[in-house]
Amino acid sequence: MKEQVLHLLKKQQSEFVSGELICKNLGVSRTAVWKHIQALRAEGYEIVSQPRAGYRLAGVPDRLYPQEILSGLKTEFMGRRIFYFAQAPSTNVLARELALAGAPDGALVVAEEQTGGRGRLGRGWFSPAGKGIWCSLILYPPVNPAAAPPLTMLTAVAVARAVRLVAGLAPGIKWPNDLLLEGKKICGILTEMSAEMERINYLIIGTGINVNIENFPGEIANAATSLKACAGRTVSRVELLQAYLQEMEQLYRIWIKEGFAPVLKLWKDLCVTLQRPVRVSSLKESIEGWAEDVDEEGNLVLRLADGTVRHITAGEVSLRPF
Amino acid sequence: MKEQVLHLLKKQQSEFVSGELICKNLGVSRTAVWKHIQALRAEGYEIVSQPRAGYRLAGVPDRLYPQEILSGLKTEFMGRRIFYFAQAPSTNVLARELALAGAPDGALVVAEEQTGGRGRLGRGWFSPAGKGIWCSLILYPPVNPAAAPPLTMLTAVAVARAVRLVAGLAPGIKWPNDLLLEGKKICGILTEMSAEMERINYLIIGTGINVNIENFPGEIANAATSLKACAGRTVSRVELLQAYLQEMEQLYRIWIKEGFAPVLKLWKDLCVTLQRPVRVSSLKESIEGWAEDVDEEGNLVLRLADGTVRHITAGEVSLRPF
Repeated sequence: MKEQVLHLLKKQQSEFVSGELICKNLGVSRTAVWKHIQALRAEGYEIVSQPRAGYRLAGVPDRLYPQEILSGLKTEFMGRRIFYFAQAPSTNVLARELALAGAPDGALVVAEEQTGGRGRLGRGWFSPAGKGIWCSLILYPPVNPAAAPPLTMLTAVAVARAVRLVAGLAPGIKWPNDLLLEGKKICGILTEMSAEMERINYLIIGTGINVNIENFPGEIANAATSLKACAGRTVSRVELLQAYLQEMEQLYRIWIKEGFAPVLKLWKDLCVTLQRPVRVSSLKESIEGWAEDVDEEGNLVLRLADGTVRHITAGEVSLRPF
Repeated sequence: MKEQVLHLLKKQQSEFVSGELICKNLGVSRTAVWKHIQALRAEGYEIVSQPRAGYRLAGVPDRLYPQEILSGLKTEFMGRRIFYFAQAPSTNVLARELALAGAPDGALVVAEEQTGGRGRLGRGWFSPAGKGIWCSLILYPPVNPAAAPPLTMLTAVAVARAVRLVAGLAPGIKWPNDLLLEGKKICGILTEMSAEMERINYLIIGTGINVNIENFPGEIANAATSLKACAGRTVSRVELLQAYLQEMEQLYRIWIKEGFAPVLKLWKDLCVTLQRPVRVSSLKESIEGWAEDVDEEGNLVLRLADGTVRHITAGEVSLRPF
């Protein structure tokens, strides 16, 4: 009901909507309308009220509220069910619990702030309140676990396309799924799954996008930047999240239907670590070579100094001078 | 301490051990010894006590108690930490919780009875009290998730070898991991994992071995049998579980060090569904062909009637007449 009041106000944007009209439209009393207005104000909506004129929406809070995300979202299942948290330890951890509890395919967990944001390999992820998109998608892809890794690369493509659309910036992808602007990270992706050997129980794609962060603490400042810092203006988190969900749904469907090849093509166009000398570090070793290509499973094809070729499944790429 | 009392009694098996000797050995009072004896009796140990002579162990209960499994177990890490339950909903579910709580590599969860035993693809698994080995191993293999599926086949080899050793029976493997005796199932394996795209958080191998079951209810009777039914005698669950853990550790180490090839060779020697006409059913389709081989990743190589070859990742094999 609160959402419907908001919807009516939004439809008239800069004009007043009479309390009477709202009552009629929603079939509720004046008092009920007033209560919903109060609730919306408590959420941060600026609503001007004027005797006889009614109510006018004067400002929308910078929050990733479900009603804001859903308003105008053009997807069929991605993000249609949203679990919103002002603060969460980690959206991936909550998403896991929600998946076990039966959350629907494409459900989105979003938090304004993560107190224990996690990156790959147990690292942390800086997730200050209201400054980024810290979210996790719950998916049930009908593929076996060995086919899942490309999903992370697909997600990188979805975020890159959303960033281009909404912020007018063109991030490059560092194999396999880091998004860079001016050589620094603007997005990290952490995909986790629970699986039997022949099917995936559920899969969680956690995404951290540095949207409007102005200052990164300590070491992080050397490795990370934000869309705001690069674009020189505040970027709408709601619009960016909507664009991400839309791109994601489109690419996910292509992947399920046609496989990874068409998505990999898009990924390669965005990649900035191919056809260059690189160093790849993993837990086991660190090797240098020429990043020749990425194979159809998403492995990095690295040509070593001795001419031999290695297909690398996982690792951290750093660019090295020619 | 209770375990040490038991150890002293076992060392003398059919002879009496004086209460005084136990007191001295363990440095505790007579009353303390008596309390431990009572505790052992409560667990089902038959202990005869005789004035002046002391205590004699007359019978060991048919239970998978940690002290029984650990007594004489020749492994370094597999099954060294045991979580025992008289009754559990599902050892895999408990193992998952224990893994999240930091259970060590090779930890074993074992239950006398499962009230919600689970098989692959959400099916149930008949797990009556005291009649089988219903257990789960918690492992942290240092491989990426795509390399994990062979572990299920490795487990089938370990169980087959343990059954041969302890029960003198020679089960055949039906691709990928069912163990058959007289054409019926004696063991099911359910492997589950939690993973990021480039590393496994934890992996659970659930094993259900039908050891001394005499009657299977309804439909199950057509598809399953037990070691007791085939061997014509009761088989020691403790010895079988020990043998399984020992075989498992040995094969697991080979796999980690040398890869899947040497294990696959053993698997092939035990397989009874190769070089025959088969039907393979999956959620998507059902196809017939000649089971020509298994490739190095464990996929079934199926030659179809038109001469083409398919590499099949998952499915249910049924033998069909020539």
